[in-house]
Parts: sequence; C-alpha cells; structure tokens
Amino acid sequence: MSVLVVGSVALDSVETPFGKAEDVLGGSGTFFSASASHFAPVQLVGVVGSDYPVEKLAPLKQRGVDLSGLEQADGESFRWRGRYRHDLNSAETLETRLGVFSHFRPKIPEQFRAAPFVFLANIDPRLQLDVLNQVEKPTLVACDTMNFWIESRRSDLLALLERVDLITLNDGEARQLTEETNLVKAARWIMTRGPRHVIIKKGEHGAFMFTDRSVFFAPAYPLENVFDPTGAGDSFAGGFMGYLARTGRIDDDTMRRAVVYGSAMGSFAVERFSIERLLEIGTAEIRDRLTSFRRLVAFEEDLPD
Amino acid sequence: MSVLVVGSVALDSVETPFGKAEDVLGGSGTFFSASASHFAPVQLVGVVGSDYPVEKLAPLKQRGVDLSGLEQADGESFRWRGRYRHDLNSAETLETRLGVFSHFRPKIPEQFRAAPFVFLANIDPRLQLDVLNQVEKPTLVACDTMNFWIESRRSDLLALLERVDLITLNDGEARQLTEETNLVKAARWIMTRGPRHVIIKKGEHGAFMFTDRSVFFAPAYPLENVFDPTGAGDSFAGGFMGYLARTGRIDDDTMRRAVVYGSAMGSFAVERFSIERLLEIGTAEIRDRLTSFRRLVAFEEDLPD
Repeated sequence: MSVLVVGSVALDSVETPFGKAEDVLGGSGTFFSASASHFAPVQLVGVVGSDYPVEKLAPLKQRGVDLSGLEQADGESFRWRGRYRHDLNSAETLETRLGVFSHFRPKIPEQFRAAPFVFLANIDPRLQLDVLNQVEKPTLVACDTMNFWIESRRSDLLALLERVDLITLNDGEARQLTEETNLVKAARWIMTRGPRHVIIKKGEHGAFMFTDRSVFFAPAYPLENVFDPTGAGDSFAGGFMGYLARTGRIDDDTMRRAVVYGSAMGSFAVERFSIERLLEIGTAEIRDRLTSFRRLVAFEEDLPD
Repeated sequence: MSVLVVGSVALDSVETPFGKAEDVLGGSGTFFSASASHFAPVQLVGVVGSDYPVEKLAPLKQRGVDLSGLEQADGESFRWRGRYRHDLNSAETLETRLGVFSHFRPKIPEQFRAAPFVFLANIDPRLQLDVLNQVEKPTLVACDTMNFWIESRRSDLLALLERVDLITLNDGEARQLTEETNLVKAARWIMTRGPRHVIIKKGEHGAFMFTDRSVFFAPAYPLENVFDPTGAGDSFAGGFMGYLARTGRIDDDTMRRAVVYGSAMGSFAVERFSIERLLEIGTAEIRDRLTSFRRLVAFEEDLPD
C-alpha cells in the first residue's frame, strides 16, 4: 500500500560541530519520503522554486517516491539555515526564507487521492485540512505540527484534530497545546479532541505512543556520534507510516513495531547531513538496528514471590 | 543475601505543587533502605542527631532493615528543605543543614563487613573509600555521587572509581565528570577508569546501563501523577541492589531485570512524600508495575525482507 505525504521540500544550510553543509536537500516531505521509501511506495506533494536542483531528487524517484505531485513554481525555494551547538539538543535557526512555500496550496493529483495512508507534515493546519478535503477515506491519517501553528492557528489545529487518527508532536509542543505539564495528561487531552493515537517525540529521550488502552515507549537509539539532528522527527514519521503502509495493518502490535521502525529511521537520519544516510542504508542495516533496539530494551520477567 | 548501604539519614521539608511536608524521613540511606527492603535484608550505616525521631524508623526495622549501624550523635540532624515548581523537573534547594552529618565517619559494624552487596550512597568520596577499607571482598560494590563531589573531590572520586564495580549518576553528572556530551562516550570514559557497569539516570527520561558489551535502557514509568520526585534515584538504587542481593547473581540478564526493578521502585517513591509509598506497597503492586513496564516497551520483531 502507498503512503501520501504533504510537506515541505527545502534547501537546508546546516552547521554542526562536525561540519557545514550548504543548500542540501531538506524539508519535512523530503526526509519523510527518503525514510518511508524503505518500506512502501511514497507519493510526495509539495512545492519547490524555479531554483531548486530537482535532479538531486532522482535518488528518491529511484527509490519509489512518486514526484508527480511536486510542483515547481516561479520564485525562490524554501530555505532554512540553522546551527547546532555542541550539545546538539536544539537547532538555532539563523534564517528562514519561505519563498514559494508561502503561497503553497497543496493540490492532490487524482492518482494520489485514494492513498490508504496519509501524512500531513508540519504545515499550516488550514492546508492540512484542505488536503483532507481532497482525499478519499484513508485507512489512517496522521499529522505533525509545531509551536508556531499551536500559537497562531489554534482553532484550525483543533478542527484538524477532529479529523485525524494520529498526531505526532514533541513534548514541548504537547505541553504548549494542552497546557498540561504531565505528558500522560497531555496525551489524554489530545485524545479527547479526536486522534485515537498520540505520539509524543522527546528527541534524544525517545518517543511515547499513547492510545486510550495502552502506552508504548521506544528509546532513541544511543548513538555515539550524532552528526546532524535535522530531520530526525520527519524520518521517524516516515519509518512509522512507511511500515504501516507496508503491512496495511493498524492493530496495536503493528503500531508498536512501527514506532520502533520510526525510531530506527530517525537514528539513521542523524548520522549524516541531509538525507545522505537514509539513501545509503539498505534492508541489512535496518534489520541490524531493529535487533539492536530489541537488545536495548530486552529483559526477562522474573517476578518475586 | 544482604545489602549494605552507607548514606544519609535526614529530615526533609518539601514543597511541591500538591502539598507540603515538614521534617519527614529523608536522605539517601533512608530511601535506599525502604526500597531495597522489599527484596533483601538491608544493613544501614549512617548518623542522625540527638533530635532525630528514631521511632519513626520502626517501619524500616519491621521490614528487615538492620539499624545497628545507625549512630545517634550529639547535635542536629541533617536537614534539607527544597521546593519543586510545577514541572517537577528539578529541586530548588532552599536550605541544607548538615548538622552531625558534617562530622560523619562511617564505622561499619563487625557483623556488616561481609555483606556481599554494598552501596555507597552519595557522600564524600573519601568516606566512600574509607568504607571500602572496612568491608571484605563484596560480590558487587556500587557507588553514587553528585556534582559537588565531582567538582571538589575529583581525585578522590577517581580513586574510588578504580575500586567500585558500578556507578550510578545522572546525565548531567556524567557529562560533568567526563567532559563528554555524548552519554555513550561518557559511559565508556568512566568504564576505562574502573567500573564494569555504568548506570546513567535521566530522571523522567529513564536510565541507561552500559557495560563494555551491551547497553540496556529502561524508561521511567509514565505516571499521571508525580507527587514528589525526592528520593527517586536512591529508591532506584535500592530496587536495583536489593534485587541483585535477592538473586545473588550479577550476570547480564539479572542486572537488566535489576534496572527495571529499580525503575519500578523509583516510580513508587514519587507517588507520595518521603518513603510513604515505599512502605505501603507490597509484592502485588511491584509485580503489577513490572508487568506494566514490560508492556510499555514490548514489541515483536518482524523484520522486513
């Protein structure tokens, strides 16, 4: 089964303690697609400017990412420039130039409208809602968001929540949205507004998936060398949704495995700049990392009398 | 098998968003003992002042904590006063009065010297070393420490590391001690100085146990109501060491289970003030929480082709 993603396709310039990259492939749609393409066919909807090096997206196409929904508009591409200090915990945004992205109105091509799995990456909730008006009864719709929309588009975001099955957001955003410090309470608050599943990402501290009946937790893989954290969350979402699309199932066991696949893909993404590592790995590496994840949390119960 | 702990026995005054407690039982030795006593006989060495309400320790004695190494000295007991803001992440220390603790010289009673499991709670590394000179070939010696000793007693702490099998410390302390931001590297740095096991506690974000051959991670249990975080780390250590003492084994499987028991006991400790909850629970509650931990991280592998 295929997965449709609507998100940004950008050019990133990133500085970390380990090096610099200029105008490399970035954006939520790009990271998501590179990650999800390891599991299922991907349909990408987004916009780039006339200056975008579209030929650099060829490796994505070769991996089964359908780019026929990627519009090229007159004007500049979305550019983000950021820097990470030595602790790599948070990006310092040096410059954001929205370019053609500021007028983005997603048009879902006819042949994408029946996609069973839909991911609304972090864009204006009004556009996320607009996408939902263009697709036909997906099996599962998930969305991401960020502090900017929580503050500036709260009512649209709440309207969106009523129409999605799952939301991914980070711990700070969950607290901001719900005004609950406790993440269990925050997740519950969100679930009462619509989504049956809430995934709270905690960056290097892992991710929780809440449902009304269970909680699942996957750690972030403890890497010795984190090179560039950009795109980890979108790569997580790509692995998660890609795995669901591959199996076609959304039962609890499958969703749990999907979170682990998401964590694995996030852990690969941060090993190089841009989507470099995501394009480099194959099934063997993914399999190995899954096994490492299993070992990381494995313990046998042996209850005291 | 029994577990010997040398640590503080204090009176805590704590303010959280949920209430206040005045002069309640606190201190690393107290939390450790209350926790470990669910698994094995405990031998507590510490000092209290002439004003200490020793009768309040009776429940510990009833639970199998041998208090014959608890000295009562002339003077004031160790008192700590602290406050937690609404996010409960870090304690704000309002007052510390060391009292008789400032002259504490641990004397290990003859009948405690053969203890197979020894925990050196967070005290001056010089005293921790002094304890090691008084005990006979334990199966496993673990120590805790804190930022104050890392700064003021670095060479003693490094000497201590050469003589312990395991250290528990939090992520900030690990980074401070090793000057490594990355926790995998920090753990490796510590292991080259002596301990075969390094447990890095990340508070609400769980705990890692590193060895030269494997990494294990246990999340903190996602509680909906954290009441008072005081003593969580020492309760963790108590569950961990208590479980090892109960089994008498220190193989990797047992150590992993011990980390989960530690996390479980830490999660109970924070549900009430002081050691209240630790004294209240029984085997059934511990068993239930272990099962919840298992569900929290359980996933079945299903590797892609």
